[in-house]
Amino acid sequence: MAKRIGRYTIKMENYPAIIGYAAVCGKKEAEGPLGHYFDYTFDDSMLGETSWEKAESRLQTESVIRALNKSGVSKEDVDFIFAGDLLNQYISSTFGLRSLSIPFLGQFGACSTMAQTLALSSIMVETGVAKHCIAVTSSHFCAAERQFRFPLEYGGQRTPTAQWTVTGSGAAVLGKDGKSPFISAVTVGKIVDLGVKDANNMGAAMAPAAAATISDFFNDTKTEPSDYDLILTGDLGEVGSKLLNELLIKENIDISSKHSDCGILIFDKKSQDVHAGGSGCGCSASVLCSAILNKLSSKKINNILFIATGALMSPTSSQQGESIPSIAHLVNIKSSIK
Amino acid sequence: MAKRIGRYTIKMENYPAIIGYAAVCGKKEAEGPLGHYFDYTFDDSMLGETSWEKAESRLQTESVIRALNKSGVSKEDVDFIFAGDLLNQYISSTFGLRSLSIPFLGQFGACSTMAQTLALSSIMVETGVAKHCIAVTSSHFCAAERQFRFPLEYGGQRTPTAQWTVTGSGAAVLGKDGKSPFISAVTVGKIVDLGVKDANNMGAAMAPAAAATISDFFNDTKTEPSDYDLILTGDLGEVGSKLLNELLIKENIDISSKHSDCGILIFDKKSQDVHAGGSGCGCSASVLCSAILNKLSSKKINNILFIATGALMSPTSSQQGESIPSIAHLVNIKSSIK
Repeated sequence: MAKRIGRYTIKMENYPAIIGYAAVCGKKEAEGPLGHYFDYTFDDSMLGETSWEKAESRLQTESVIRALNKSGVSKEDVDFIFAGDLLNQYISSTFGLRSLSIPFLGQFGACSTMAQTLALSSIMVETGVAKHCIAVTSSHFCAAERQFRFPLEYGGQRTPTAQWTVTGSGAAVLGKDGKSPFISAVTVGKIVDLGVKDANNMGAAMAPAAAATISDFFNDTKTEPSDYDLILTGDLGEVGSKLLNELLIKENIDISSKHSDCGILIFDKKSQDVHAGGSGCGCSASVLCSAILNKLSSKKINNILFIATGALMSPTSSQQGESIPSIAHLVNIKSSIK
Repeated sequence: MAKRIGRYTIKMENYPAIIGYAAVCGKKEAEGPLGHYFDYTFDDSMLGETSWEKAESRLQTESVIRALNKSGVSKEDVDFIFAGDLLNQYISSTFGLRSLSIPFLGQFGACSTMAQTLALSSIMVETGVAKHCIAVTSSHFCAAERQFRFPLEYGGQRTPTAQWTVTGSGAAVLGKDGKSPFISAVTVGKIVDLGVKDANNMGAAMAPAAAATISDFFNDTKTEPSDYDLILTGDLGEVGSKLLNELLIKENIDISSKHSDCGILIFDKKSQDVHAGGSGCGCSASVLCSAILNKLSSKKINNILFIATGALMSPTSSQQGESIPSIAHLVNIKSSIK
C-alpha cells in the first residue's frame, strides 16, 4: 500500500503499471527528431475538424482510443479518466472525451498536467480504489496561440525565450497488472512564485518550481541524481533547463549529466525555428508516451524521473500586472520491480 | 479501506471526517436567507483588492485560512489542497493559495468542483495517502460575468432561465479523526450531453448529469431517496431542479420530498431578483460549508447526498455552435458513523 516517505513523496508498494500508452501529434512534430516514435501524426492542423479547438479535442480522442487498444482494456473497465489541457474550461478534454462515458475528473496543472494525471491515476490504482485509470493531456499550437498570445494571422514576432506549443496528445492506461513500466513514486508540487512576469519566458518562471520538487524528492527518498538513468523535465526549454541546473547546483544537486527536457527533445533546434524549444501540455505527454515509455518498456533505460512543469498564469493575470506562479509534479517510473 | 460498490461508487470504511469548514461571501449573499450562516461576508465586491479576479483569489485565501483555524490543523500538516474555480486557468485558486506552500492539485469540474475536491480529498484520507486534505472552490459574480457573458457596464438583459453567479468561497479540511460529519461514499460522474445549447440555461444542461449520477448512486448502493434526510444539488436553480425531478421520475426515482438546491437556497427569489437562482462554484461550496455542515455537525440532519453539477462549456465552444456537456459528482455525508 502506498506510503508517505518524507514530507512530500508517496512511495508505491504495489507498483501500478502503465499497460498501454499512445501519442498522436501534428506535422511539425512529425518532422522533428521523435517523429517516428509517435503512434500517428496528422498532416492537417485541423485534423479534418472545423476549428483548431475541435482539432485539439480530436487529438485527445485519438490518443485515448489508441492507448486503450494497446492496453487491451475496454473503456467500460476504466474507473476514472484524469484529463486536462490548456484551453479555457478544458474544452479539449471535455469535448474530446465526452463520448467515452468514463467517470471524468478534470485536472488543471497547465503544462504539468501529464505528471498530475499520472500521479493521481497511479494512487487510485495503487490503493485499489480503481482497477484502471487513464491519464491524458493535449495541446495545439494554433488554439494556444490565439487564446494566450495573438491571432495567428497577426504574425507577431516571437522573442528568443519564447517556446513553441506542441500540437499533440499523450495518453497512458494504468492498471495493477502489467509487464513494464511501473510507477514507483510520486511527488506532488507546491506553487512557487519568484516574481517572474515575462509571459514570453515560461521556462524561467517554471524552473524554480522544478528545482523545488526535484529537491523535495531527493530529500524525501534519500537518493541522488546518479541513482537515475534520466531526469526528464516537461518543457522548460533551453532557457529554463539552464536555470534549473543552476538552481539545483546551489543546493549541491548536480543533475547535468542525467537531465533532458521534453521541450528540447521534440524539435530540432537548428532546422525547426522554435526558439527556446517546445511547450504545452501535449509536449511532455507526447514525448513521454512514445520514445521514453518505449525505452522503459524495452529496458533500454530502467529508472527515470519525469517532472512536468506548469505556469499557472492567465492572460488576465498578466494584464493585471501579476507574476507567474508555477508548479512541478514528479513521477518516478521504473522498467522493472524487483 | 475504500471499496467499490457497484460500477461507480466508492464506499468509505474509515469514514474521513470534515474537521473544519468555512464559507465567506459577498454582500448580496449576506442579504440572502443564509447570510447569518457564513463565517464572514464582505460589503465591498473588490474586497479591498484592485480587480474582481484578485478579489476572488482573496475569497479562497479567506475561506481556507478560516477552515484551517477551525480545524486546529496547521498548513504544514496538510498533504494536498484540491482547488478549482471558474476563471480561465484557475487564477482564483492559484493566486489565492500560492502563499500557503501546500502541495496543490488543481481541479476542473466547473460548478461541480466542490464535490470533486471533496471526493478526491476523502479518498486520499481514507486510503492513508494523506493525513489531511483541503477542498476549496470559489466564484465571483463580477469576474464571471465579464469572462463568460458581457462587460458589467454593458448592463445586458438577463433571461428568465439565467442564474446569478454567487460571490463566495467554501473550504473544508478533511482528516481521519473527527467528531462529525463524515464522508460515507462518493460517486464520480460521467460527462453527459443531451444537446442543450442555451448558455443562459445552465440548469437545463446540467440536470441530465445530476440525474445520471444520482441514479448510478442508488443503483450501486441499493438505497432509495427515503434513506436520506436531504438530497442537495449544487446549482440547478429553479429550471434545472424541476427537470431533474422529471428525469428521475421517468426512472421511478422520486426525490421530490427530499430535494433541495443550493442555487435556490442561497437567494430569496422574491426580493433578490436572481431569476432562476444562484450558480457558480462558490454557490454549492458556500452553502455546504455553512448551513448544511452546521446541521450535520449538530445532528439536526444525519444523512445527506450532496451532488454538485458543472456545465463544461466555454464561450469559445458555444461560439463554435457546440452543445453544453455537463457532469455531476456525488458525496454522501453523514453526521455519525455507527
